[in-house]
Amino acid sequence: MIRVSILYPNNPGARFDVSYYVETHMPMSIKLLSAHPGFREVSVERGLGGALPGSAPQYLAMCHFLFTTVDDFMSAFMPNAELLQGDISNYTDIDPVIQFNEVLLVQ
Amino acid sequence: MIRVSILYPNNPGARFDVSYYVETHMPMSIKLLSAHPGFREVSVERGLGGALPGSAPQYLAMCHFLFTTVDDFMSAFMPNAELLQGDISNYTDIDPVIQFNEVLLVQ
Repeated sequence: MIRVSILYPNNPGARFDVSYYVETHMPMSIKLLSAHPGFREVSVERGLGGALPGSAPQYLAMCHFLFTTVDDFMSAFMPNAELLQGDISNYTDIDPVIQFNEVLLVQ
Repeated sequence: MIRVSILYPNNPGARFDVSYYVETHMPMSIKLLSAHPGFREVSVERGLGGALPGSAPQYLAMCHFLFTTVDDFMSAFMPNAELLQGDISNYTDIDPVIQFNEVLLVQ
């Protein structure tokens, strides 16, 4: 199983419309990507804070897609890449960190 | 529900013993923290790569703890903080990014 993590850095002065992200962008993204048989789960999150009490979070928001394989994710994403990437500017000017992970252990 | 994400940056020349992390540190951590009734799930992951094919991942490893509330996590973690934090130097010299997140949507 793999996880694709999309992390939005908490840059000073960055624009990020959480409502649009959660109510419009992510539902569209989930509808398109979850149709693939390799889709397992998605989680959408808002950063609350860092390790030290009162500290700012490193990331304003995170999204994690679980898929069976990287190839599954790519074949789900690529046909929708233009639509989904074209929607990003509607909620943020942040360039997200995107990372593919191998899930070693879930419990 | 909240997620505590512990992210190990892929610093040049960093030391990270994946075997020790996955076979010793995380099992100890999970045994101690999952005993709390607020524990929901944990996922341990290894970075495969970034968004561009062949690019390095931003993080060498990630660990995500799902708990019902931040207070639940803190009351599970604090009695074990010294033991768990004292074990970090056994597998890495990386200072991890730690972040608390509110889970807005899981599907």
